[in-house]
Amino acid sequence: MKDNRTMLTDFYQLTMNASYLDSGKGDDMATFDLFIRNLPKDWGYYIANGIEDAVDYITDIRFEQDDIDYIRSLGRFNEDFMNTLKDFRFEGEVYAPKEGTPIFPNEPVLRVTAKRSQAQFVESALLNMINFQTMIASKASRVVQAAGGNEVYEFGMRRAQEEDGAMKGTRACMMAGCVASSNVKAGKEYGIRIGGTMAHSFVMTFVDELEAFRAYAHTFPNYPILLIDTYDTLRGARNAVVVGKELEEKGKKLGAVRLDSGDLDDLSKKVRQVLDEAGLDYVNIVVSNDLNEYKVEELVKGGAPIATYGIGTEMITAKPVAAIPGVYKLVEDESGARIKLSEGKRTLPGKKQVHRQLDSEGKYLNDIIALDDEAVEGTPLLELAVKDGARVRARPSLNETRSYCTGEVGKLPDYLKQVRVDRQYDVKVSSRLNEMVERLTKEYGVR
Amino acid sequence: MKDNRTMLTDFYQLTMNASYLDSGKGDDMATFDLFIRNLPKDWGYYIANGIEDAVDYITDIRFEQDDIDYIRSLGRFNEDFMNTLKDFRFEGEVYAPKEGTPIFPNEPVLRVTAKRSQAQFVESALLNMINFQTMIASKASRVVQAAGGNEVYEFGMRRAQEEDGAMKGTRACMMAGCVASSNVKAGKEYGIRIGGTMAHSFVMTFVDELEAFRAYAHTFPNYPILLIDTYDTLRGARNAVVVGKELEEKGKKLGAVRLDSGDLDDLSKKVRQVLDEAGLDYVNIVVSNDLNEYKVEELVKGGAPIATYGIGTEMITAKPVAAIPGVYKLVEDESGARIKLSEGKRTLPGKKQVHRQLDSEGKYLNDIIALDDEAVEGTPLLELAVKDGARVRARPSLNETRSYCTGEVGKLPDYLKQVRVDRQYDVKVSSRLNEMVERLTKEYGVR
Repeated sequence: MKDNRTMLTDFYQLTMNASYLDSGKGDDMATFDLFIRNLPKDWGYYIANGIEDAVDYITDIRFEQDDIDYIRSLGRFNEDFMNTLKDFRFEGEVYAPKEGTPIFPNEPVLRVTAKRSQAQFVESALLNMINFQTMIASKASRVVQAAGGNEVYEFGMRRAQEEDGAMKGTRACMMAGCVASSNVKAGKEYGIRIGGTMAHSFVMTFVDELEAFRAYAHTFPNYPILLIDTYDTLRGARNAVVVGKELEEKGKKLGAVRLDSGDLDDLSKKVRQVLDEAGLDYVNIVVSNDLNEYKVEELVKGGAPIATYGIGTEMITAKPVAAIPGVYKLVEDESGARIKLSEGKRTLPGKKQVHRQLDSEGKYLNDIIALDDEAVEGTPLLELAVKDGARVRARPSLNETRSYCTGEVGKLPDYLKQVRVDRQYDVKVSSRLNEMVERLTKEYGVR
Repeated sequence: MKDNRTMLTDFYQLTMNASYLDSGKGDDMATFDLFIRNLPKDWGYYIANGIEDAVDYITDIRFEQDDIDYIRSLGRFNEDFMNTLKDFRFEGEVYAPKEGTPIFPNEPVLRVTAKRSQAQFVESALLNMINFQTMIASKASRVVQAAGGNEVYEFGMRRAQEEDGAMKGTRACMMAGCVASSNVKAGKEYGIRIGGTMAHSFVMTFVDELEAFRAYAHTFPNYPILLIDTYDTLRGARNAVVVGKELEEKGKKLGAVRLDSGDLDDLSKKVRQVLDEAGLDYVNIVVSNDLNEYKVEELVKGGAPIATYGIGTEMITAKPVAAIPGVYKLVEDESGARIKLSEGKRTLPGKKQVHRQLDSEGKYLNDIIALDDEAVEGTPLLELAVKDGARVRARPSLNETRSYCTGEVGKLPDYLKQVRVDRQYDVKVSSRLNEMVERLTKEYGVR
């Protein structure tokens, strides 16, 4: 976890709280839902992620003296409000699904209940971490599905949106089923498997490609991976064969060759032939070069003999999606359930629970969003994560979350795991919740 | 500046360096260029950014003991290599344009010369920071241009790709000409102007909208901004008028009203009329709602009476671009100038300089990429930033960089500042550099 993120907030969280204090509204209890409005084109599901960072954040809220000094220096707030900042903490409760749970639009990812000043304040930072981490886990899950059992490596640091993007993004990719990353810092911090090959500049450093391969294999004789496309991919494959044979003589083995340009379907087949004809059928082919789930699916369906897909830019940034529409909305306060009616931005009111129903084969059948006190069949997804401002479930290891996540994705119906999803999962709204929506729409429509 | 980012690197930087050590190549001098391959659709220029963070990073490289312990634990490296890590520093030189300079594809953004092990190692982190910060400054500059003199506010924290995305992204937006941000932490760290309004949940907290507006104006009587679209925008405008009149009675003034949904062109004109008819012609209109440079341009051209555009998601993530193709390539070493020939990934060899030529009106005319020792007319863009591993130019303040950047954008020809650019800036390659490309292509084509 990063340092305390209390100051990572939008200015209006401070102005609203100042006004709530003046109006005597700050201590009223309120419930907010964090949910995602819809899915990007072609996507079938989200993987809830960032939940545990959200819990760490929310249970560690506190303004430091220099934060308070800064806020005072703005000259916008009275001393009554400034006095509240020193002891400002989150004292409420948070419900959330387990990190790694597949979720769908309009389902609460977090349900936050606290004094209004506290429940409101956490909006900006929660959205910042949940939106990004959920997006990348979901994108990576799509890539892993497209690879159809072949390995996916995360290679995106250089195109990630700054350091946190690389770090939290790598973690999300691993959670969703990638097998390794090139990110050394993520290896150290998260205990994940790291790996890598070489840059074209390495090959260019030596008199010729063969000498470069020999030098690398000398340093790393156990299953080295050689980048073979710096000059000409097929000649590179033949140079790799020479080094592979030399390794065999030492009782070692070449691990793989990597292609990073050109027609990967055609070249991987030709390279496979070069390797096989030389008796190096155990040498794998790794590919990279601006890949995404669409290109991976095409290569897999075309029978390209590729064992490992290295995915960079598009997985670590979810390009072109780049951001998902997670929002944080008031759904209940001391005056009862609340609804927002702005054009195209309606909300589901009240304190809610999501119930997941499985079919006879253990696959997801449908979800039902219901009021919290409704009795509905199925597994309730939202669990108590924070109570009285303190964490109440232990943070699982990344390995545990990864196992859980990939297991749950295994239960998703196949129509949601296509690269181009054209049928949405069935998320129902309970009849009592529907009635509440209708009643409140009439009631608030006249204010 | 963040903590030391030495571990923010790709694993292959370590394996390559281990092999360079074994081959005796690590201490050879090498030059790498960081440049961007091409521009996204519709874009006319980049704003070089992240330069100063890059200099801070490169002059502060050092592995901590626990980093070294982690790398040793991987069991991949011999002790000769491990022994080099403790004192590993960057001892070379870096040339770069001033942060905030408009740049174009294939022009070096950084030119790094050092011992090969050092010059190679910094690739991943440099790309991570330069790619993102350059992309956001460039995107924000497009939005600022589209707004045509109206104010642009940065509102994107909740959709940014994690905390660094929000922080470095906000800084980039301010550099490019935004006038304020909602990001409180950025306000504290960068000394920028921050601002904000209220959430719909604020309005929903009170018995009705008018009471909500009165409460906010009570706490912030000096130029408050009221969000008027929670229930019905025109009724919201009339409620704002009531509060505006009440403020006038106290000798205060309403600052603005904000629209966050619906047809912003139509609604802004109707709201303007409501305000004007009530004598509140001094009250500004602020709009938001998934805006980007295309929508802003349309509103401006349609004559919408909008003073301030609040831009969130698309500016802070550069959606749908999401990542730009910055790369880092070997261009020279002890064997002379080097070229990479991989399909679609060719490089310009040699140590280079970029010369910018202006027309008689002081506007950018064309750039010439030339070899470093060529005499070419125009202003050289690359300046010495790091020498012998130490910073040699002071880090300018954000205000200084902002003035410089917006001044330089003012010198760009108008055809580059359209929202949809269909004519690219003229970047020439000097004849000596062209000859070198031809010679090396022949020479390396046969390896």
